[in-house]
Amino acid sequence: MSSKYNIVSLIRKKRDQKSLNADEISYLIEAYSNSEIEDYQMSAFLMAGYLNGLNAEESSALTYSMLHSGEILDLSHIPGVKVDKHSTGGVGDKLSLILAPIVASAGVPVPMISGRGLGHTGGTLDKLASIPGFSTDVDLTRYKEIIEKHGMVLAGQTAEIAPADKKLYALRDVTATVEYIPFIAGSIMSKKLAEGIDALVLDVKVGNGAFMKTTEQAIELAETLVSIGEHFNKKTIAYITNMHQPLGKAIGNWLEVKESIDCLKGSGPSDTNILSHLLSGTMIYLGGKADSVDTGIEMSRKQVENGKAFQKWVDIVEEQGGDISYINDPKKYPTAGFEFELLASRKGYIQALDTFSIGMAALELGAGRKIISDTIDPTAGIVLEKKIGDKILKGETILRCYTNKPAMIDIVTEQLFSAITIGNEKPATEVLVTHISDSQGTRAFEL
Amino acid sequence: MSSKYNIVSLIRKKRDQKSLNADEISYLIEAYSNSEIEDYQMSAFLMAGYLNGLNAEESSALTYSMLHSGEILDLSHIPGVKVDKHSTGGVGDKLSLILAPIVASAGVPVPMISGRGLGHTGGTLDKLASIPGFSTDVDLTRYKEIIEKHGMVLAGQTAEIAPADKKLYALRDVTATVEYIPFIAGSIMSKKLAEGIDALVLDVKVGNGAFMKTTEQAIELAETLVSIGEHFNKKTIAYITNMHQPLGKAIGNWLEVKESIDCLKGSGPSDTNILSHLLSGTMIYLGGKADSVDTGIEMSRKQVENGKAFQKWVDIVEEQGGDISYINDPKKYPTAGFEFELLASRKGYIQALDTFSIGMAALELGAGRKIISDTIDPTAGIVLEKKIGDKILKGETILRCYTNKPAMIDIVTEQLFSAITIGNEKPATEVLVTHISDSQGTRAFEL
Repeated sequence: MSSKYNIVSLIRKKRDQKSLNADEISYLIEAYSNSEIEDYQMSAFLMAGYLNGLNAEESSALTYSMLHSGEILDLSHIPGVKVDKHSTGGVGDKLSLILAPIVASAGVPVPMISGRGLGHTGGTLDKLASIPGFSTDVDLTRYKEIIEKHGMVLAGQTAEIAPADKKLYALRDVTATVEYIPFIAGSIMSKKLAEGIDALVLDVKVGNGAFMKTTEQAIELAETLVSIGEHFNKKTIAYITNMHQPLGKAIGNWLEVKESIDCLKGSGPSDTNILSHLLSGTMIYLGGKADSVDTGIEMSRKQVENGKAFQKWVDIVEEQGGDISYINDPKKYPTAGFEFELLASRKGYIQALDTFSIGMAALELGAGRKIISDTIDPTAGIVLEKKIGDKILKGETILRCYTNKPAMIDIVTEQLFSAITIGNEKPATEVLVTHISDSQGTRAFEL
Repeated sequence: MSSKYNIVSLIRKKRDQKSLNADEISYLIEAYSNSEIEDYQMSAFLMAGYLNGLNAEESSALTYSMLHSGEILDLSHIPGVKVDKHSTGGVGDKLSLILAPIVASAGVPVPMISGRGLGHTGGTLDKLASIPGFSTDVDLTRYKEIIEKHGMVLAGQTAEIAPADKKLYALRDVTATVEYIPFIAGSIMSKKLAEGIDALVLDVKVGNGAFMKTTEQAIELAETLVSIGEHFNKKTIAYITNMHQPLGKAIGNWLEVKESIDCLKGSGPSDTNILSHLLSGTMIYLGGKADSVDTGIEMSRKQVENGKAFQKWVDIVEEQGGDISYINDPKKYPTAGFEFELLASRKGYIQALDTFSIGMAALELGAGRKIISDTIDPTAGIVLEKKIGDKILKGETILRCYTNKPAMIDIVTEQLFSAITIGNEKPATEVLVTHISDSQGTRAFEL
C-alpha cells in the first residue's frame, strides 16, 4: 500500500479533537493489519481516540475496516433471514445453547460463531467443548453445509474473521484502552457482521457481573451497537438485561450444558427460560416467521413444548461430532472429584450476590481461564440453590461447588462467603429486562 | 527491577485524569529505559499525559527520572558558580558562541553541552564543527580538565547524558506527542541539569521561526522550565525573545561562526550584540560576579571592549583542537561554490519574514539536515542584508545565498521570495525581548 496518509498526522488529528474520514480510518486499520503502522503509533492513536472520542461515522468506519480486514461469509444462497444473537458476557449465561436450536427449529437460520471465555465470564465455545466429541472447528465449506442441512451451525472464531480486531484487541488489552464503547462495539460488530447474518439480537448485560456496571453505560453500548448494525443494513434489536446475579442456577461448562438441556425440555430455571424465550422470540420475529416479538415468544415456547427444539439440539450435536448419549442422558456425564456446599450462617433473605466474585470462584474451581493457555475442567463449577430474594434458614444450602482442585476449596469457600449478602429484609425483586433499544431508539421494557 | 507497579494500571490512572506520584513516574522511566515497558505502552501513557496533563510534581519527577537515567556530571570541586544558557531554538541563533567566552572571561565557569541541529533550527555543535579541527567529542576527564583550565568547555551530548530522554524523544517524535510543554521542559532540563551547572539562563524564543508560536505558549514554557530549575535548586532566569525574524544577519554554520567573531570583536549586528550582552550579563550576575543584571551587562560589554572575550574564544578553540588561523582571519575560510542574491522586486519596507521558511531554505542550500544522517556543508547559508522595518529600493539586495548545490538555486529563490513581505508602510519595530520569568514570576521586560 502506498502511504497515502502520514500516520503521525492522523494521530495528531485525533489528538487535536478533529475527526478522521472513513478513508483515513480505513488506511489506519489496513496499514496496522499489514504491520506498516507500528504498535506504538496505534496505541497513541487509540489513547487519543479513547480520550477525545470517535463520532458515529468514525465508529462505523472502524467497524467496516475491521470487518473487511478478513473473510466475510456469504450465506445469501441459503433461503431465509439469517439471525444471530450476541451477549456482552456474564456469569451463567448459557442462552446461546438454548435459543439457537429453538430458533432454527422454528425455521429461522442461525449462523453462530462464538468465542472462548476469559476471566469471570464463560464462553459458548467452552461450554460446547464439554460435550464429548463436539467440534466447533469447521471450515467455510462445512459451515455452509451444516447450516444448509440444519438451519444452524455452532462454530469457533477462525483467524480469517476480522483479524484486525484480534490484533487491535491484544494491543488495547495492554495499553488501558479496552473500556471505550466505540472500540467495544466495533470489536463485537466486526465479528458478528462477518458471520453472514441479516439481523441481530443483542443481549447487553448490566450489573456487578457484567462489563457495563450501570444502566447508562449499557444503554450507550446498546445504542452504539444498534446504530452500527443499522448502518450495515442489519435489523438490530438490543435488550438491557440483568447481571446483578448469575443467570439460572448453573455456572460451569457441562453444568450449563445440562441446565440448557433442562430448558430445552421445558424445565430449568424460570429466569433462564423467560430470557431465552424473549431473545429467541425476537430472533423469530426478525427472521420473518412471526409478525411481532410477542408472537415470536409464543412460537418459541411452542418449539420447546412440542419437542422440536430439543430434537434440533440432538441433531446439531450429532452433526458436529458430539456424543448424543450425554445429551439424552446427562446423568451419564462424569462428575467432579470433589463436591462441597456453602451453608447459610444465619437465617434471612439473600439480598445481594457479588456476581463477579462468583464467576471468579467458578474459574478458580477449574471452570474458566485466567490466561488464554489455561485448560478448563468441564465438570467444575457452581450450582446456586438460592438467588436474590430467596428466603434462607440457618444451615440451609446456598450453593454447591464442584471441582477437581481440592486445594482451592478453602480459598473459594471464603471468597464465596464474602460474595453473598444475607439480611433480614426481603430485597426488591431483580428486574430481568429493563430496556429495549432498536432503530426507533431506547425505551423502558416490560416483559 | 521487580515490578512494583503494573504498567497498565499506571496508564489507566493517567487516562482517568489521576496524578501519579514521584515513585510511579520514576518506575515508569526506569522500566522504560530498561525496556521492561514496551514502546506501545509508553506511547499510550504519553498520549494520556499529553491530553490529560501532568501537574508540577509530575513534571519535576519526570525530569528527575530522566536526569537520573544517565550520568550527572559533578563539577563541585571547580570553584565558582557554574552557569549555562539554553535556547529553545531559532534561526541564526549563534549566541552560545559569543556569550560563553564573554562569561568565562569574566570569571564565571560555563560548562556547555550542546546538540546538533535538526530541521529549520541550527545546532551549536554543527557551528563548532565548521571550525577545522575543533572537537566537541570530549570524555568526562577531558571535560573537567578543559573547564578547570579555561573556565569553559564546549562539548557534545554523549549517550551517557539522560539516555531516557533520548529514547522518549524518539518515541514522541513518531507518536505526535512532542508539542506538550511538560515533556519539552523535562527533555531540556534533564540534559541541562546533568552538565554540572549551579544556575541557568534560558532564551525562550517566540515567533514564526520558533517552536513556540505565541507569547502565551512561550511564557508557559518559560515558567515550567524555571519551576523545574528552582525545584532542583538551580537559580533560573528565562527571557522571552523575538524569533519573528532570524537573529543577526548570518544563517549557516561557518557564516554564523564568522558573525560571532564580529560580535566578540565589538562589531556584528546590533540585535545579536544586545541579546548576547543581556544573556551573558545575566549569567555573570547569576555567577555571582555582578550584583545586578545591569552591572553584569556592563561587565559583558567591557569583556568585549578589552579583548578578553575574543582571547578566551581563541584559547578555547585552540584547546579543543581548532585551527585558530581561521578565527584570527575568517576571510581565509573557503567559500561556497555558488553565490546568488535575492533582489527586491519593488520598493518599500520589509514588513515580515517567514523565519521558518528562511531556516528551511538555508537547510536546502546545505546548512542543515532533514534527517539525522544528512551531512552539512559548513560554507552554505544565507546572509540577510535587510531585516524587518528596513527600507528597500527596487532591485536592491535583500539577502545573499551560499551553496554548493546549484540544483537548489531556483527552488530556494522561489521559496525565499514567498518568505519575504514588502509593503508600503513601515511596520512596527520588532521588540527583541518582551518578558522575564524567574522564581518571582513573569513580568514584562524592557531592555
